[in-house]
Amino acid sequence: MSDTRTNAGVDNFSTTRKMFNFSVPGERAITLMTAGNLATTQALISLLRERCETSEDRKSGILSQPTMFQVASLVGDTLKELITSRGPSSGTFSASVIVGGQIKGGPPTIFMIYPEGNFIELTDDAPFLQIGETKYGKPILVRAFDDDMSYEDVLKLLLVSFASTVKSNLSVGLPFDVQIYENDTFTTDRAARIEADDPVFCTISDRWGDALKSALNSLPGYKF
Amino acid sequence: MSDTRTNAGVDNFSTTRKMFNFSVPGERAITLMTAGNLATTQALISLLRERCETSEDRKSGILSQPTMFQVASLVGDTLKELITSRGPSSGTFSASVIVGGQIKGGPPTIFMIYPEGNFIELTDDAPFLQIGETKYGKPILVRAFDDDMSYEDVLKLLLVSFASTVKSNLSVGLPFDVQIYENDTFTTDRAARIEADDPVFCTISDRWGDALKSALNSLPGYKF
Repeated sequence: MSDTRTNAGVDNFSTTRKMFNFSVPGERAITLMTAGNLATTQALISLLRERCETSEDRKSGILSQPTMFQVASLVGDTLKELITSRGPSSGTFSASVIVGGQIKGGPPTIFMIYPEGNFIELTDDAPFLQIGETKYGKPILVRAFDDDMSYEDVLKLLLVSFASTVKSNLSVGLPFDVQIYENDTFTTDRAARIEADDPVFCTISDRWGDALKSALNSLPGYKF
Repeated sequence: MSDTRTNAGVDNFSTTRKMFNFSVPGERAITLMTAGNLATTQALISLLRERCETSEDRKSGILSQPTMFQVASLVGDTLKELITSRGPSSGTFSASVIVGGQIKGGPPTIFMIYPEGNFIELTDDAPFLQIGETKYGKPILVRAFDDDMSYEDVLKLLLVSFASTVKSNLSVGLPFDVQIYENDTFTTDRAARIEADDPVFCTISDRWGDALKSALNSLPGYKF
């Protein structure tokens, strides 16, 4: 799940998609999510797309990589190249990426790519990855995520996590983009955009405050 | 409430008090909490204490200020002086302070002081202040704080907020220091230290995960 808020200061914000698919139905399904400097992440996606399309570059494109590990390496190298090309003040142009998916012959997986171009992979011990404005929404994921949750419950958990962030920080905002990938389907068809007036999201966000208060009431008070 | 974790990297952490009282029983009760560079905050407290004790400086000390506004100004000026004295790389030595309390003749109040020495005051619209590693613990305060909570419930809420941070970030840790001030009492007697093995804290922290899961279960799932 990704939000769509982008800003260059509180007096200059806009809506932009941060989730991008690269797929060959039946053969590979790859989803990228970006955080950080918008000029960098837009250039990253444009470069990655160009390399899939122009004939001389096609072999070095995402759609030609044999494994997800090679896809992550390619995205990492491209990201690092873009950031360092900005020169010594490259910190300002920093960005990070989550890339997940599956290529036929390999398992589904997810990587988190750092601005330096290196990356880590999802493991059973650390079952979720976050980039961007991560702190507000992390505690609920740490406490409530469970491997055997249904996808409806995971979506609800993600919505609560994002809603917690939206309530506390202007740099994150609706609509949200969601991509579900079912193992061995090699398609990115199962996607949705959740708008600010989505009735289920509004119900979840409105009732979460009361649910938290009830949860607090179930615990003992602290006296001294 | 303040934590006591201090660190210079994950391989070098320690426990240090971040809450300090300046009081004249029956006349004024003032509590400071600090966040940021430990050398800066220790120097701040030492300087503020010295000025209360040495005869030539006593008039410019916290214990001689006529109002809480003047106390906040003094703390802000001292903080700014300390940080800028570090020269151009002063960002590294940054710190911030919350100062609250009451001086006879004036109302109780709380200020948040920035590294630049300026400050803001608590208002009805923004009923809590945070400094330091604030993001993890903010969503629960935003959602669940209520003006008419009992002090036991406020303590419980603060413990849940701090516990959320402790679970997500190594830079915050127990024990916690707590100071309660009851209006017009002019005493800082009502204070406690909550240790990591405190049975009520452990119960609250352990059961909060389950309480959150129940809270989530009470909301509708998201399907598409």
